[in-house]
Amino acid sequence: MKKIINAPDKVVVESMQGFASAHADLVKAFYAPNYITRANSPVKGKVALVSGGGSGHEPMHSGYIGYGMLDAACPGEVFTSPTPDQVLEASKAVNGGSGILHIVKNYTGDILNFDMAAELLKSEGIDVERVIVDDDVAVQNSLYTAGRRGVGATVLLEKITGGAAEDKLPLAKVAAIAQRVNDSARSMGVALTSCVLPAVGKPTFDLPEDEFELGIGIHGEPGRTRLKMESADKIATLMMEPILSDLPFKTGDEVLIFVNGMGGTPILELYILYRKALEIATNAGLKVSRNLVGSYMTSIDMAGASITLLKLDDELRKYWDAPVYTPGLRWGI
Amino acid sequence: MKKIINAPDKVVVESMQGFASAHADLVKAFYAPNYITRANSPVKGKVALVSGGGSGHEPMHSGYIGYGMLDAACPGEVFTSPTPDQVLEASKAVNGGSGILHIVKNYTGDILNFDMAAELLKSEGIDVERVIVDDDVAVQNSLYTAGRRGVGATVLLEKITGGAAEDKLPLAKVAAIAQRVNDSARSMGVALTSCVLPAVGKPTFDLPEDEFELGIGIHGEPGRTRLKMESADKIATLMMEPILSDLPFKTGDEVLIFVNGMGGTPILELYILYRKALEIATNAGLKVSRNLVGSYMTSIDMAGASITLLKLDDELRKYWDAPVYTPGLRWGI
Repeated sequence: MKKIINAPDKVVVESMQGFASAHADLVKAFYAPNYITRANSPVKGKVALVSGGGSGHEPMHSGYIGYGMLDAACPGEVFTSPTPDQVLEASKAVNGGSGILHIVKNYTGDILNFDMAAELLKSEGIDVERVIVDDDVAVQNSLYTAGRRGVGATVLLEKITGGAAEDKLPLAKVAAIAQRVNDSARSMGVALTSCVLPAVGKPTFDLPEDEFELGIGIHGEPGRTRLKMESADKIATLMMEPILSDLPFKTGDEVLIFVNGMGGTPILELYILYRKALEIATNAGLKVSRNLVGSYMTSIDMAGASITLLKLDDELRKYWDAPVYTPGLRWGI
Repeated sequence: MKKIINAPDKVVVESMQGFASAHADLVKAFYAPNYITRANSPVKGKVALVSGGGSGHEPMHSGYIGYGMLDAACPGEVFTSPTPDQVLEASKAVNGGSGILHIVKNYTGDILNFDMAAELLKSEGIDVERVIVDDDVAVQNSLYTAGRRGVGATVLLEKITGGAAEDKLPLAKVAAIAQRVNDSARSMGVALTSCVLPAVGKPTFDLPEDEFELGIGIHGEPGRTRLKMESADKIATLMMEPILSDLPFKTGDEVLIFVNGMGGTPILELYILYRKALEIATNAGLKVSRNLVGSYMTSIDMAGASITLLKLDDELRKYWDAPVYTPGLRWGI
């Protein structure tokens, strides 16, 4: 499978170089260990938000660095957890004296390495809180994961928590809001094709031409089941049913619907999915007051999509609407 | 090839429905004939910008409707020109009394149908000017095209001309700025894979696993040549050389570099391309003062990318920087 790269082992660093050049007004890149911070870091008196994970999910996380969202991101190699020293150095670089929140998707390697960095930061007297994102209802345990996987809710959590941090809320309160976003969000994904890792050069898994996988993970981890290809409306239904019943979302709840493309799915198709997801949510008595449709958390070049439902309250809505100015998400500024 | 659709003949309308629901604060959709306008159309005293073309290039054009960019877009069927009545009705719906600018990519069907609509509008006493976008240096004539094809410059032109229209410049001046953007821009694209049309369900053309096509069109039209797969840096060089020599761009020129993904290309790879394009432009003595990196004008799910160079002057830079608030491009608001 062809890729526009120079060499698999240079993908992350060269992409960081291009990204940092393109967005020099917003970000600064550091190498060995690799991390990216806001250009104006540290921001004094504000909780610093640090996230990270394997590369290959762009624009997450580096694309969400900037006003109203993250202070730093630690890009691991493709689909590989960032190392403890990446997290440690990034956290120290953005520490504005009001504590640090680590936003960690629930993958075993990520948690281990963020925890090691947190211990070192605490030994230096720096306050660190952690939120684990585990919104994927597809499976209870998975490859690389004890418990549920962290997927689409991560984008929503980084936006909302970023708004709260920008509002100068204290660390405990910012961490509580992050936890509430995770607790109020559920996601489910499908794959039509496998992604292709640059270092591997062929599909991670085989998916026959007439089948799709329901409940796919963002690294191509197995989902719930493989099914014969279905219509967009049926696929939306198969994703929405387990989401709606899991929290559960109840009549009268106000929600945000996030339809996310996995990298290889045209926007045309994402809006067809959104059309049906909106209908299902509305018929279930939910008030859909906000939405996000696009490829915001990808699995390299996978054809597929995920749906995330987030139950909103006044505070979560306020911080969702708050201004944001990052390479990947921007409004109000 | 699998698609998240209900039926090929429903793709455009169902996607419009989802799009209009998701962005009801910004746009209104109309059907039979199909077109989308700003929610607050018509805007009195402002030149109205109307574009359109075949669907399959999203977010272009519908994603660029809103403050600071388009007033209306006419989505044809996938890779099919919009009909004259789509253009006519869209133009009338957004006519604010200060004239209309039709932004037309240089494809024979598009020009014919926009021209028919323009004649009808003029017969009703409405001022209409037209700008044809033909920035693709790859080939002199092409399938569907007499003369050069219109590609990436369209996005830049719609943004800059939209800023000028919002500034309440008169029609002749807005049209002149649009023409200057086209005259100051050059583009070149590559494909690693073919796109797959929903109604066809298999690749439009075959491209062997070890080859790419240099100079591809956004509908998969043949380019200049097929080459054995190369590194990202070599691909960037092969695209930049014909761009730089064509205008020509000269030492000291201020430029915007636009690296565009064709739909199936990960952002990681686009930034690797940008990294090299920036280096080549800088080494050629150009001052790269602005950039845009992302999938802003796609060819459904094609793996591939294009590079556009736009020579800036004070006025073009001012209107590029001006506030924009559309589903696909947003800043300053």
